Amino acid sequence: MVNFADRMSQLKGSEIREFMALTAKPDIISFAGGMPAPELFPVDEVIEAMVTVLKENGQEALQYGTTEGVPRLREQIAERMKAKNNIITDIDHILMTSGSQEGLAFSAQVFLNKGDVVLMESPSYLGAINAFRTCEPNFIDIPTDSEGMLMDELERVLETTKNVKMIYVIPDFQNPSGKTWSLERRKQFMEIINKYEIPVIEDNPYGELRFEGEYLPALKSLDTKGLVVYLGTFSKILAPGFRLGWVCAEESILAKYNFIKQASSLQAPTISMLAASKWIDMFDLDAHVEKIRECYKNRKNTMIDIMRKELPDSCKFTDPEGGLFTWIELPESVNAKELSMKCLAEKVAFVTGTGFYPNGGHENTLRLNYSNMPEEKIVEGMKKLCRIIKENL
Amino acid sequence: MVNFADRMSQLKGSEIREFMALTAKPDIISFAGGMPAPELFPVDEVIEAMVTVLKENGQEALQYGTTEGVPRLREQIAERMKAKNNIITDIDHILMTSGSQEGLAFSAQVFLNKGDVVLMESPSYLGAINAFRTCEPNFIDIPTDSEGMLMDELERVLETTKNVKMIYVIPDFQNPSGKTWSLERRKQFMEIINKYEIPVIEDNPYGELRFEGEYLPALKSLDTKGLVVYLGTFSKILAPGFRLGWVCAEESILAKYNFIKQASSLQAPTISMLAASKWIDMFDLDAHVEKIRECYKNRKNTMIDIMRKELPDSCKFTDPEGGLFTWIELPESVNAKELSMKCLAEKVAFVTGTGFYPNGGHENTLRLNYSNMPEEKIVEGMKKLCRIIKENL
Repeated sequence: MVNFADRMSQLKGSEIREFMALTAKPDIISFAGGMPAPELFPVDEVIEAMVTVLKENGQEALQYGTTEGVPRLREQIAERMKAKNNIITDIDHILMTSGSQEGLAFSAQVFLNKGDVVLMESPSYLGAINAFRTCEPNFIDIPTDSEGMLMDELERVLETTKNVKMIYVIPDFQNPSGKTWSLERRKQFMEIINKYEIPVIEDNPYGELRFEGEYLPALKSLDTKGLVVYLGTFSKILAPGFRLGWVCAEESILAKYNFIKQASSLQAPTISMLAASKWIDMFDLDAHVEKIRECYKNRKNTMIDIMRKELPDSCKFTDPEGGLFTWIELPESVNAKELSMKCLAEKVAFVTGTGFYPNGGHENTLRLNYSNMPEEKIVEGMKKLCRIIKENL
Repeated sequence: MVNFADRMSQLKGSEIREFMALTAKPDIISFAGGMPAPELFPVDEVIEAMVTVLKENGQEALQYGTTEGVPRLREQIAERMKAKNNIITDIDHILMTSGSQEGLAFSAQVFLNKGDVVLMESPSYLGAINAFRTCEPNFIDIPTDSEGMLMDELERVLETTKNVKMIYVIPDFQNPSGKTWSLERRKQFMEIINKYEIPVIEDNPYGELRFEGEYLPALKSLDTKGLVVYLGTFSKILAPGFRLGWVCAEESILAKYNFIKQASSLQAPTISMLAASKWIDMFDLDAHVEKIRECYKNRKNTMIDIMRKELPDSCKFTDPEGGLFTWIELPESVNAKELSMKCLAEKVAFVTGTGFYPNGGHENTLRLNYSNMPEEKIVEGMKKLCRIIKENL
């Protein structure tokens, strides 16, 4: 009857979000989503910040604002990006978005015509793949090793492929693999990028959540040609319910994101922006992040320790240095979808890996989140999961 | 250097939003934006609702939620749509968006391939034109009279045009013209739509802000074939700073909007949704809307009275029955852009009409907003504007 646009045939609901209703049930042990630990949300402090903002600037908080977002918040972000990522920037290079998912969708709109090629790590974030699909590109996923994307593969593809318009990467605690790019790999990558002059979307939602090892510079901090578009978010260090992310890019590129932001949703939520900004002024974001880091580190260790003990060598998994996820590659004979059904029957949920590959396949992979469950549930759930895996080898 | 997607060459910043920085200056009398009267925002009540929500459900308010949005709020919306618009619906047919601007952008993504045709009133909302442009359609604007879109023109275009994939209309207190479709016109329109089976986007941000005359049914309430996608918003009846709008559509269509919502921004802000929902439960939205209506009615009358007295018959303008805007058509020899410069020099701002025509032209038109300025400023600004118009006839 009604005709839909061609792009709709490519799009489907994310398995993760379809899962949310199911996994919200209290008796499910869920390693499926990418949700922060809600018990760490600074609820009382948010009340204080919110009341202060509404008393001081209630009319401003409830009104429309500019497309780019509240200046004080962008100033705080610029300061933080300098302190944490060594990125020298200022408020004129920062656009607030409704979560960094919007930054992903906007990137596709800014750079991709139908049929253009986007490169990404293999596997890569399912939500990014979905966001990019709205512009109907072709995807090429570049293999990775434990240090990140393979540079000779990247160069080979860049040399032999027309219409590569964008490269999407998550160098820190990647979603879904949990891997982190080495410094050497980051430098090599920027050399290649500078040679081909392809815009890079650096997605860094987890960078501050490092459990161990040395701080590694963001690609954006190594960017001498203005090719890197950096996406940040408050979802993992403060609260996703605010829906606050940002794009940091060179001016001529950011201007395009600004146009798309106007056309797509006018502006980020004023009340969220002012409340987050006030919270940062009133309280200690560093101390708060430290709490999150400590909690997730313990949860990660609990999860990894059980896999170390329980899983045979034929099952490979990442021991992440930070972030929210680990990733399992099972022997090729094992189907993660079937495992998932068996686990769900025992009230344990995870996301299968196929959706993280833009061109499918890899049915023997799965992603595990450890940020959203307390340790005792992680122990209980992982014991079940490891048993079910072993029964199916 | 860097290549942008083709769509970017069509997109520019909205004159309205570019104006915002300028018109935010306190000495400017601005008829330019579409901002609500901030002094009517129920700030103290929002504080109460916000504190209650955060105390009762702080962790939920700060966490991710489902794509479609908070159930209680969608229930309240369904009840309100029944009471105010005679639309019988339920929460399964409502998707929360980040303002209804997102509903516009999503409509393009759901229905439009590059080169497809979208029909709209002439003139139409500039923000919708911009949102649709991201999908690179062709626009045909259908002439209107004082009762709305001209049906014989609509039929002629539908008969002779291939690939019409969507019709966008604002039947109540249209932005920018201030016009309202008559009941007869609404019925004729639905007959034609049912014959051609083209999806209709009914944008209704102002419907509740009726100053006088009888209530007219929404197109969606006359929709027997599930062809109308209804866009609603809290921006004009509660507060735009929450960024809360919604899409109400038949299930198979809403499923597509849901996929696009996931890909674009995951979900509307949880904290905004819960606070708005709590506000509606705790306070009286009807009484609040009545206050807004009374205020805007007085401001509208003030503005129109001055135009009646001051402008010669060669200047046509709408006396709107509700909403936020009126519209002036000057003699064709007068250029609104030049007027605008002269007015700005005297600290009065408005938006020229050209941008509201998807294919340009109509340089003798302009839009005036009356919701955002107190009456004494409206008097002062309109006297200047009318004098400058007369000097340029």
